[in-house]
Amino acid sequence: MASINTPEAPLKTSAPQADYNRSKGLVVDVALRFLLFATALVALIVMVTSKQTKMIPVAPGLAVPLDANFNQSPAFIYFVAALSVASLYSIVTVALSILALMKGGISTKLQFHFVMFDALLLGIVAAATGTAGGVAYVGLKGNSHTRWNKICNTYGSFCFHVAASILLSLISSISLLLLVWLSIYVLFKKIARR
Amino acid sequence: MASINTPEAPLKTSAPQADYNRSKGLVVDVALRFLLFATALVALIVMVTSKQTKMIPVAPGLAVPLDANFNQSPAFIYFVAALSVASLYSIVTVALSILALMKGGISTKLQFHFVMFDALLLGIVAAATGTAGGVAYVGLKGNSHTRWNKICNTYGSFCFHVAASILLSLISSISLLLLVWLSIYVLFKKIARR
Repeated sequence: MASINTPEAPLKTSAPQADYNRSKGLVVDVALRFLLFATALVALIVMVTSKQTKMIPVAPGLAVPLDANFNQSPAFIYFVAALSVASLYSIVTVALSILALMKGGISTKLQFHFVMFDALLLGIVAAATGTAGGVAYVGLKGNSHTRWNKICNTYGSFCFHVAASILLSLISSISLLLLVWLSIYVLFKKIARR
Repeated sequence: MASINTPEAPLKTSAPQADYNRSKGLVVDVALRFLLFATALVALIVMVTSKQTKMIPVAPGLAVPLDANFNQSPAFIYFVAALSVASLYSIVTVALSILALMKGGISTKLQFHFVMFDALLLGIVAAATGTAGGVAYVGLKGNSHTRWNKICNTYGSFCFHVAASILLSLISSISLLLLVWLSIYVLFKKIARR
């Protein structure tokens, strides 16, 4: 993370320089919001399409088709809900950011609302990533102490979907953290400049 | 959450009024950091002392003592690690905030570092709460699809410790979110005032 005292950010900048810096920040903001949108949406799709059906032997010579699906676990349902909210939020904010970029700048009030909601979403998406990750890890490794069996040796494709989805939502969380950091950095530069 | 346009926050305030507002913000900051410290530390202690031993029948007339402990689950180990970091961080920041309060104000640079780390910690603690919560929910309700059995009917005191600890870490996460919100609100008021 860039420090507030980087040499390329002098305390007093001329107006065109300030405008340039502000729009550069806004371009990074739009790029991060687009990354958030892409990762949250793909994570959502990958998780929702994770269903896998396998013939499971229940008795000698008898196998029944059993599904593995995200909606069998409350953790994954919360994950899908949180990422749906993040996707919707990122669509709206990408649109508003691009609009602000075209107008040449972002109003302080809009920026205030952005960073407030970014921080809230960071908490929600990070918690969702953790929740799904914790349960998926039990599915991958099992737990001998509680005698919870692994399921990834049976439902490989399901687990691959879940793992990919969690990785993507981790990138979403990191994008949100970077968005909060960027907003705060831009704010502090504004204060230092005046 | 208070809006940036609250009637009691006029755009131009006299210097003593501004100082008063700033130190009021700092008092709330110290209070929230203390809440963070208290909840993170108690959550940590409650989780670490959750060990419960029970006689589990393994054969008719034969029972062996079996432990339930937080270190049997990678999710709870991550939870303990994250809350240790949060506790240590909150000790340091409570001390620095009280020092700043005694000196009558907080430097912009220190505030910048606080809010950057607050946002990072928010992500870490929220993820830890989610991870432990996801696994604890499986322990409470079980999962019939994966045939993961409940363990809370056997290890009641262990589960009570885990549940209390997760609730406390949820309060820690919310404190961190409020700290980030407070810092951003104070910053935007500073910008609006100038």
